[in-house]
Amino acid sequence: MNILGQRITWHDEGLLSQALTHRSVGKGNNERLEFLGDSVLSLVISTHLYNHYPQLSEGELSRLRSQLVKGKTLAEVARHYQLGSTIKLGQGEIKSGGVNKSSVLADAVEAVFGAVLLDQGYAYSESFVAAVMQPWLEKIDPSVIKKDPKSHLQEVLQKQGLALPVYKTIKEEEVNEGIQFTVTCQVIEKSLLVQAKASSRKKAEQACAEQMVEKFHG
Amino acid sequence: MNILGQRITWHDEGLLSQALTHRSVGKGNNERLEFLGDSVLSLVISTHLYNHYPQLSEGELSRLRSQLVKGKTLAEVARHYQLGSTIKLGQGEIKSGGVNKSSVLADAVEAVFGAVLLDQGYAYSESFVAAVMQPWLEKIDPSVIKKDPKSHLQEVLQKQGLALPVYKTIKEEEVNEGIQFTVTCQVIEKSLLVQAKASSRKKAEQACAEQMVEKFHG
Repeated sequence: MNILGQRITWHDEGLLSQALTHRSVGKGNNERLEFLGDSVLSLVISTHLYNHYPQLSEGELSRLRSQLVKGKTLAEVARHYQLGSTIKLGQGEIKSGGVNKSSVLADAVEAVFGAVLLDQGYAYSESFVAAVMQPWLEKIDPSVIKKDPKSHLQEVLQKQGLALPVYKTIKEEEVNEGIQFTVTCQVIEKSLLVQAKASSRKKAEQACAEQMVEKFHG
Repeated sequence: MNILGQRITWHDEGLLSQALTHRSVGKGNNERLEFLGDSVLSLVISTHLYNHYPQLSEGELSRLRSQLVKGKTLAEVARHYQLGSTIKLGQGEIKSGGVNKSSVLADAVEAVFGAVLLDQGYAYSESFVAAVMQPWLEKIDPSVIKKDPKSHLQEVLQKQGLALPVYKTIKEEEVNEGIQFTVTCQVIEKSLLVQAKASSRKKAEQACAEQMVEKFHG
């Protein structure tokens, strides 16, 4: 049987059938397999990136990984291999065009990865996921990963003979996932001020720096 | 050699040494191994939960997983196995008490998992991680995972003969990680209103529902 462009002989074809059953159908749907597949995908991609890009930092590897595992990419994967037509949907979801929804498609891809893990073990699923993702792994261009934005901003300012930017944390508030930091970044000599929010001070500062760099290039 | 309470014969002991080298030391530190180990841990825990709790939904499995893989738990793991004394730190980090910092400890645990994967392959690392995490896996009590808060709130209101709560999305704003949703929940007959922010509308609604349930029980 072919799935996501790969030939596979299933021990238990019921797993594949479950992986292709959207939650709108009811029981026996793919949500639990998606939970598992999400982790399989992450480990396969992490291992690939770790081995192929020894020169990249942890932050750069993480940015590449998130590009590859995000819903938008997985929906592309599903469309590339024409997975949509094999997904079982409930009546409501069929009417609302679920077969074309990126989230439905991406979830099914992850669920198939989970099913392959259960049916064939990790070694096989590693080859399977890598083969499925091959076209996207080949497209990776690590040179386009941006340098850490704070370092980049500092370079830009130094080239223009300007002082270092000033970062200030102006708010810390509790949100569902934890603390949210609101940070500002100022380039005083240019009267420039930007603001960003994120789940850590460092991330918020990086987001500010990214915006500030755009102001200089824009 | 014993590490995290497990005997292991390394093919390349340099990997262990790298896993125990904090970034404050400079080159050859554990950040890249931590990137890998984070994914190993996630897959081992996901597989364990998937197999041991067939009755749990994807959402419940995710909540259990995040309890087990969060930094606070991993720092506990490090302290339990007295990993701290084996971690190499730079001078600055030694002075600021890095050996007791939860983030330093948790990162080293993940990095050791990454090193074991590279040195021994996935099957071995699965047994290793499961053995290390065994005391925490045994402590799991799925009955304490809260029911999905929106369903719970609905039950609470129905028991009191009240109408369904009203959820409204009052703001969507771009933050570093994507869109942030601000949602309110009203129980009109009781003049109760709560508000929450999260990275998806559904999560923000769940957070609102959780707060609202507390208002009824408190």
